[in-house]
Amino acid sequence: MTQIKHTLSTTREGDFAQWYQEVISEAEMAEESGVRGCMVIRPWGYGIWERIQALMDADIKAAGVQNCYFPLFIPLSYFAKEAEHVEGFAKEMAVVTHHRLISDGKGSLTPDPEAKLEEPLVVRPTSETVIGAAMSRWVQSWRDLPLLTNQWANVVRWEMRTRMFLRTSEFLWQEGHTAHADREDAMSETLRALAMYRAFAENVLAMPVITGEKPENERFPGAVATYSIEAMMQDGKALQAGTSHYLGTGFAEAAGIQYQNKEGQQALCHTTSWGVSTRLIGGVIMTHGDDDGLRVPPRIAPWQIVILPMLRDTEEDAAVLAYCEALRHALAQLRAFGEPLRVLHDKRPGKATQKRWIWVKKGVPLILEIGGRDAANGQVSALRRDQLWRADAKPNFVAQTKDAFIASAASELEAIQSSLFTEAKAKRDANIVRHIDSLDALAKFYAEDQRYPGWVELCWSKPTGAELEDTVAQLKALKLSIRNTPLDGEPVSGTCIFTGKPAVERIYVARAY
Amino acid sequence: MTQIKHTLSTTREGDFAQWYQEVISEAEMAEESGVRGCMVIRPWGYGIWERIQALMDADIKAAGVQNCYFPLFIPLSYFAKEAEHVEGFAKEMAVVTHHRLISDGKGSLTPDPEAKLEEPLVVRPTSETVIGAAMSRWVQSWRDLPLLTNQWANVVRWEMRTRMFLRTSEFLWQEGHTAHADREDAMSETLRALAMYRAFAENVLAMPVITGEKPENERFPGAVATYSIEAMMQDGKALQAGTSHYLGTGFAEAAGIQYQNKEGQQALCHTTSWGVSTRLIGGVIMTHGDDDGLRVPPRIAPWQIVILPMLRDTEEDAAVLAYCEALRHALAQLRAFGEPLRVLHDKRPGKATQKRWIWVKKGVPLILEIGGRDAANGQVSALRRDQLWRADAKPNFVAQTKDAFIASAASELEAIQSSLFTEAKAKRDANIVRHIDSLDALAKFYAEDQRYPGWVELCWSKPTGAELEDTVAQLKALKLSIRNTPLDGEPVSGTCIFTGKPAVERIYVARAY
Repeated sequence: MTQIKHTLSTTREGDFAQWYQEVISEAEMAEESGVRGCMVIRPWGYGIWERIQALMDADIKAAGVQNCYFPLFIPLSYFAKEAEHVEGFAKEMAVVTHHRLISDGKGSLTPDPEAKLEEPLVVRPTSETVIGAAMSRWVQSWRDLPLLTNQWANVVRWEMRTRMFLRTSEFLWQEGHTAHADREDAMSETLRALAMYRAFAENVLAMPVITGEKPENERFPGAVATYSIEAMMQDGKALQAGTSHYLGTGFAEAAGIQYQNKEGQQALCHTTSWGVSTRLIGGVIMTHGDDDGLRVPPRIAPWQIVILPMLRDTEEDAAVLAYCEALRHALAQLRAFGEPLRVLHDKRPGKATQKRWIWVKKGVPLILEIGGRDAANGQVSALRRDQLWRADAKPNFVAQTKDAFIASAASELEAIQSSLFTEAKAKRDANIVRHIDSLDALAKFYAEDQRYPGWVELCWSKPTGAELEDTVAQLKALKLSIRNTPLDGEPVSGTCIFTGKPAVERIYVARAY
Repeated sequence: MTQIKHTLSTTREGDFAQWYQEVISEAEMAEESGVRGCMVIRPWGYGIWERIQALMDADIKAAGVQNCYFPLFIPLSYFAKEAEHVEGFAKEMAVVTHHRLISDGKGSLTPDPEAKLEEPLVVRPTSETVIGAAMSRWVQSWRDLPLLTNQWANVVRWEMRTRMFLRTSEFLWQEGHTAHADREDAMSETLRALAMYRAFAENVLAMPVITGEKPENERFPGAVATYSIEAMMQDGKALQAGTSHYLGTGFAEAAGIQYQNKEGQQALCHTTSWGVSTRLIGGVIMTHGDDDGLRVPPRIAPWQIVILPMLRDTEEDAAVLAYCEALRHALAQLRAFGEPLRVLHDKRPGKATQKRWIWVKKGVPLILEIGGRDAANGQVSALRRDQLWRADAKPNFVAQTKDAFIASAASELEAIQSSLFTEAKAKRDANIVRHIDSLDALAKFYAEDQRYPGWVELCWSKPTGAELEDTVAQLKALKLSIRNTPLDGEPVSGTCIFTGKPAVERIYVARAY
């Protein structure tokens, strides 16, 4: 059998980390900016983010949450109010100390000592404190509750080791912040957001996730409970792809978010926060990418169909271009997933067969190549990105009539979306191991020369305090962490491999990004 | 004649600056954040910004410009490369000097001296330098040109006196950055962006503007030519509402943006940049607001129609609510300005007659009040925000059949959009004075006890150097500035009132925000 000649120089099997960088670079999604820990998001990467934003924003608005915008800078004093919170973030924040530069007399610039701020400002790593201050002004009575806000913003966390999309000093995200009359209502919002993230990951990103509660040691600083969606990447590692926090009354107390209840008494609000970020794009790459580059789920593809005219610098070209333009127009009238199709007629100079590989690497779901004969015969030649190669190692172009292609284009995109999810879910499910019944077995499982060992599902006794610290240390020695306790409520039995006590709940253990 | 009892406590005539603040506060558009110079943009203000973003973004994409995202932080060294540019911005930038906080031992936090950055980072006041660095990587050959990028971002300029939406330390904007093979192509892009801004201001914001070139002293730091759209506020002051810059080859030289031309030689690119910001919202308020609050042009209204059910806590309420919901549904199927109508059925508790004034202050174009009798008779009672009062000083509700209202709703919104523009343009045109033929006459005109003196159109000799400085100083003494030289190409005659030399072009002179 002929060997397929893949488009990328690195395979997933060969070097997953290197492959990841190559996909980002070859698909022109992002690049190092020259500014420490910050990336430039290029049009193809940003286009995917715009799609994620548009669809997530619709979900957020549909839940009655209103978008606002809060300051980039947070005064130090705001930040110091919530003790656990500041403890958790204090090690990684960008601090603004001056508001002017002056010449240093040596042809360069330096912060002006006379323009030193009385109180340093922190570049927001997250906005609980500054939004809490606003909520304390907005909430007066039970009638003002629930107060449901969200912002789309950039945040900064000073990271030592960065990796594009997954961990950058500056990243883009949405952060929902809500205030409620009581625990029940706040918890219900926390879980609503989590369910929204799950549905979004699965239906929009075609990325299967497990929703659950993070263990105590992995909680958001200051939170009472933190929930996450966890996705498995193709190297078997876990990616925390979104979190939702029930914050109790701690932040409300720090910021003074109080309301008069129906009985006329003052009460503290219960607050929540929840967020997803540009990290999702890293998840999409590592869930769907293959050795030929990215594969973008149709719902978030900036272009779902790219039409490549095969031009020969002859008179025939005009007819090919006209045919392609008519095809683009006809396709753009169609709808899939409740939206008009996004179709590009790529008329840039260059050979279609070369341009094809650019779009393959970018992961466009459907690529059409149209030559003079196709135009004359009312045909198209179509390539599904998720069925790229034929058995004979040639690109799997399928010739069909233009009318047949148009008639099936929307359902074809829906099939690709669905197929990517099914494929990812099968991979994920095949790489979750159960029935590991001792710490030794766990150590052995991850020590074996198994390149991508996946996740282990365990039952544990949910230790706290020193016992939990021990457990976390044992796992850390194996480079493992607890991802979450799934919310599916399946029954638990057996003994905790960490404490020897009876198990009370299940957890997923994995290596993670 | 009965006196109208206006909704706001301050009138435009009474105290325009105070009125402006009151509109923002009463319409719940924004508020002070507690962080120096930064505002919180509340849902109604942010909703207007989302509309501006969506429509402007469509214009930007239609021009073939691609969105990207570039770092928030700019290393000092990048900034120092373009000498004029840094000179113009160096006085007002937020500077990050540390990346960690530690306890100060007194229960508070302080920047960690051990986490001092080797090179301070500037929070971007604008992104020419960091985008230039990326362009130098992306542009290799004439085939890569023109390179057309844009980003939606927050920027920070340390301002001494701030005013919500008009001048805040942090603001939101879009910044277009493009690179071209030659001056002609770059200038054509500069003017394309300017024309896009003009059309947007007039067609979307219903805000008439004058497009023209800024005088030399008002150029963007480092630019060869700066163009602006200038709008007249209701107090006669000018608002620079958008700018477009032809940057020549200065930034390309500083960042190394070079390309190989068709002859195989290296050449410098010619670059442009252009931007509009949340300042546009301040312009909308001061263009269309009246003594009852904001009036939002329908194209940017988050809700174009608000339906208020008049409930009485009786059994009849269910029928009213069902009628309102059916009405909302029917209206939401309609389209105006090429988009579905945005219709809110405001079912929150409270009397319709009280809620009415909330929406009047927010400036919703059409407000419907529906009582039991309306529901029974298939009627609606509609209030056009731009025709708020009857001659007898009562709210100008017009009763009509539901079917008639639905049939005309889209055209009614279009009529409101058009009427706001016509009204603003008539005011603007009536407040431009011509035929002032001496500096004394100019001084007299602005010294007269005329509250809102408007703009003066003059012919001048376009002085440069010391002569221009003199002219600018003379104007400054009268608290005036040159807004721009209009691009309409009308003929010029007479003598320059500043220099006594023959006039070569027209300028607009005004007080300004």
